[in-house]
Amino acid sequence: MTYCCALRLKQGLVFISDTRTNAGVDHISVYRKLYTFGIQGERFICIQTSGNLATTQAVIGHLQNHLTLKQEPNLYSVNTMFEAAGLVGQILRKVIADVTEDTQEQSNYFCSLLIGGQIKGEDMQLYNIYPQGNFISATSDTPYFQIGESKYGKPILDRALSYDMPLDEALRCSLISFDSTLRSNVSVGMPLDTLVYQKDSFVIPQGKRINEDEPYFQNISKQWSETLKKGLQDLPKPNDDFFQ
Amino acid sequence: MTYCCALRLKQGLVFISDTRTNAGVDHISVYRKLYTFGIQGERFICIQTSGNLATTQAVIGHLQNHLTLKQEPNLYSVNTMFEAAGLVGQILRKVIADVTEDTQEQSNYFCSLLIGGQIKGEDMQLYNIYPQGNFISATSDTPYFQIGESKYGKPILDRALSYDMPLDEALRCSLISFDSTLRSNVSVGMPLDTLVYQKDSFVIPQGKRINEDEPYFQNISKQWSETLKKGLQDLPKPNDDFFQ
Repeated sequence: MTYCCALRLKQGLVFISDTRTNAGVDHISVYRKLYTFGIQGERFICIQTSGNLATTQAVIGHLQNHLTLKQEPNLYSVNTMFEAAGLVGQILRKVIADVTEDTQEQSNYFCSLLIGGQIKGEDMQLYNIYPQGNFISATSDTPYFQIGESKYGKPILDRALSYDMPLDEALRCSLISFDSTLRSNVSVGMPLDTLVYQKDSFVIPQGKRINEDEPYFQNISKQWSETLKKGLQDLPKPNDDFFQ
Repeated sequence: MTYCCALRLKQGLVFISDTRTNAGVDHISVYRKLYTFGIQGERFICIQTSGNLATTQAVIGHLQNHLTLKQEPNLYSVNTMFEAAGLVGQILRKVIADVTEDTQEQSNYFCSLLIGGQIKGEDMQLYNIYPQGNFISATSDTPYFQIGESKYGKPILDRALSYDMPLDEALRCSLISFDSTLRSNVSVGMPLDTLVYQKDSFVIPQGKRINEDEPYFQNISKQWSETLKKGLQDLPKPNDDFFQ
């Protein structure tokens, strides 16, 4: 499986993806699921992928191929993030249709994608692209999307994340969301790829890969466990009527 | 959907179930999913249910019917919790086979059950009964089971729960697991049914129903949100290399 999470906040965009793929528990590999595109000073686009690996690699492959061969439309010729999401959705539909026309069977080849970024002249955007190629947009009410194994890491986002939160705090919040998922589901695994984009910077971030031995991640994971344990102990005790 | 959780700890057993059932979002009802059986001073048995409501009600109905008509084996004649789990598993298989012999179609009628308790002469036991009627047992390494919408509430159990934990702390830990689930998934809903059994007491607990307006639950839910928000702020800030 996979876990990817992306936030569109007041101050910028945050993306985190795991790297574990599995075709059965005896066939586990590390694949990057976070891809960046862009032109310094003009546009930044990040795509995260979940689902059938052949499908996701084909989608990214076609997008890169269009750029290499200067075929239009491509991610550097589209005028808005809305057009970028539409392009990715069309390619996704085509990739799946290329391997099967049987609608029932198509679900075997499904993947979900997140695409976020900013193109000069418009605000940042973040879209969640469904396997059918259509998509929805993040808003200030619903500032985050998840794809893959999303349930374990959802409670902390639902409780603590807000649109106005500073980027560094939002990054910590999403890292904790990942830590919770990593602990409860072995199909999501290290290393993690993280990327933070500052609004209106039009700088393509290098991003940071977090490996198993990354001291910062180990620290916050340990401290978070202590926070939870102490927090539980500090909760008021239940009355006697719970024990009758 | 449903969320049920049961713990078998050193000092006793803890059971919590939600009460929401849904056949589509426009057909939501409240049904109890936690049932107790027992003979004061001799045996205590608790069963929690998840899945097809007609199946779970039929299983509980047959168990109660056996007791009413004094048909053997029944929950008051079995010698051990292992036999109790076997009886429930057999009834579950039969209930599903009664509505369809088509193996493919059977999954529409599936349910999962947790059964825990203590019969004089043996230690407490907790079993997770699969739709096929077979089952596994909780241990000190894996002291809890969940059925239904289990993922949202799993991280807090994985991080904070331990076999040696006092019952009141384990109850708080499971209530937080429920609170996290309730906030992230509307298919799990209040009221909650809770039950705590003290080891070797052979007293059948009355249990406590937690309604929406229960002050204790509101308090711990609010305090927990503050714990998480403050805990996030107190985590060390990420280095600059996360923002490049």
